[in-house]
Amino acid sequence: MSLVVAGMVAIDNVRTPDADHSELLGGSAAYASLAASLFTEPVYLVSIVGQDFPQRHFDTLSNQGVDLSAVEQAEGQSFTWSGEYSSDLNVRSTTALGLGVFENWTPKIPAQVTATTGCVVLANMSPRDQHQILDLCPDACFTIADTMEHWITGERALLDQLLRRIDLLILNESEAQLFTGSNNTIRAGEQLARAGSRWVVVKLGEYGSLLFGREGELFRCGAYPLRQAVDPTGAGDCFLGGLAGYLDGQAVEEPTSDDLRQAMMRGAVAASFTCEAFSTRGVEQADRVAIDDRVRQFVSIHSTV
Amino acid sequence: MSLVVAGMVAIDNVRTPDADHSELLGGSAAYASLAASLFTEPVYLVSIVGQDFPQRHFDTLSNQGVDLSAVEQAEGQSFTWSGEYSSDLNVRSTTALGLGVFENWTPKIPAQVTATTGCVVLANMSPRDQHQILDLCPDACFTIADTMEHWITGERALLDQLLRRIDLLILNESEAQLFTGSNNTIRAGEQLARAGSRWVVVKLGEYGSLLFGREGELFRCGAYPLRQAVDPTGAGDCFLGGLAGYLDGQAVEEPTSDDLRQAMMRGAVAASFTCEAFSTRGVEQADRVAIDDRVRQFVSIHSTV
Repeated sequence: MSLVVAGMVAIDNVRTPDADHSELLGGSAAYASLAASLFTEPVYLVSIVGQDFPQRHFDTLSNQGVDLSAVEQAEGQSFTWSGEYSSDLNVRSTTALGLGVFENWTPKIPAQVTATTGCVVLANMSPRDQHQILDLCPDACFTIADTMEHWITGERALLDQLLRRIDLLILNESEAQLFTGSNNTIRAGEQLARAGSRWVVVKLGEYGSLLFGREGELFRCGAYPLRQAVDPTGAGDCFLGGLAGYLDGQAVEEPTSDDLRQAMMRGAVAASFTCEAFSTRGVEQADRVAIDDRVRQFVSIHSTV
Repeated sequence: MSLVVAGMVAIDNVRTPDADHSELLGGSAAYASLAASLFTEPVYLVSIVGQDFPQRHFDTLSNQGVDLSAVEQAEGQSFTWSGEYSSDLNVRSTTALGLGVFENWTPKIPAQVTATTGCVVLANMSPRDQHQILDLCPDACFTIADTMEHWITGERALLDQLLRRIDLLILNESEAQLFTGSNNTIRAGEQLARAGSRWVVVKLGEYGSLLFGREGELFRCGAYPLRQAVDPTGAGDCFLGGLAGYLDGQAVEEPTSDDLRQAMMRGAVAASFTCEAFSTRGVEQADRVAIDDRVRQFVSIHSTV
């Protein structure tokens, strides 16, 4: 199979209480594709960057096995995000945002990518772009979409339609509550799992994630215990990428609840690596041996028998 | 074996966005003893109340199998707590507090209680009182102490001493971070597990709990998925009581990591019941069949295989 990861590739500027880094590789699809490439190949990244996009970021992606043939480089500025974390790293604020070339993006994807019969990941971006990608990849066996508050409040009708076209919706706890108007996360997840997609994953940040299935399936996935978090940017995207990459790598076309449990564990492990260094360096440093080791630890730490 | 649960018994006034109830049975040791009595007997409650303590609250406790022979009724007012929850039920504020007869309490415990060779639970109360109870029960096989921010900042030396006398310390995530000065919960728990007690349990509220052992043991326990939380008061105390009651009911004298995993699951299930109704009514309504059913669900929901 082949995995398609569509979404934002960005130039990030990140400040934490301990450090301040600029011109970093960032963006939901950059993180997700790097995490996915830990588990499967080929991984096609579908995105757009500007003329200012550093060559070293292209090199990082391709060195990790991400296929860049569907990344367009256009006139204009790359998408940029600047953010700042408070001392507990759970609270962050966006200090600057520039849409750049994404403002007028019309995805153009080579035929060998749109022909995919594998998994398609619609990382966090506008529901309009997510619909377009789905239109272009009609043979995908499993489709996953992420979203965020901005689209839940601003593009609700398009999101509601999207839910009926995808297999799995993934979003944060606060977003699930906003989407449903319920302040109970279990009820919110169950409600979303009846709204269209077969599956819903609600991310709980450092506390793990929850899987809800339309048939009442429920799984609570924990988190890998991190002794030092340096930069949590992209953790949710790496969770998504690891999840999708694992499914694709196992050639699972119609995942069961058990498949998704395994996939979510891999996502949690991928996310743990990215938190340990700035930008994508943590996930770049991960390899199969380190991943397998953390998966074994993860199972042991969460075992109820 | 016999289980001793020492701590506060209170008259509570609780307001949530949906309801307002006064003159409720409350207090850390009331909740913990009721939860423990779901798993073992006898459960001796060690506490003090005033002349104003309602007979119906005595009846509730004894009807659930809690032995009241070590509950002193003295001249003066009972301990009272008034609290108010915000709409997400995770944020609460104390609006009034009256120590009453606890201010000058000197625990007096009948000989058949102090002779226990079972588990002794020191629910949240002053470390001075916790030391006194330990002095009175020299033959306990396993001792557990809860604490709170007030004592961590105000009675640190006594708490440090207490840690070296007990087998298991239990506290909330924010308290573990305050205790150690670390904003990373894994590091905080590991540091506490080297500070004296063989085991440390860090409660994560609705996200579950973590077990740390002096030998590096680590377990992440989830939470039972609640679709409707009505009043979370006492959830942490019921977790503690369920944990201790299970160990005592299994006649475990020196629990292993596996024993504690099983015990924490029972604690999580006991806590789930108490959140479903005001005061202690949720835990009163639980029975063995309902508990076993939730434990089975709990295992299934968290299974990683």
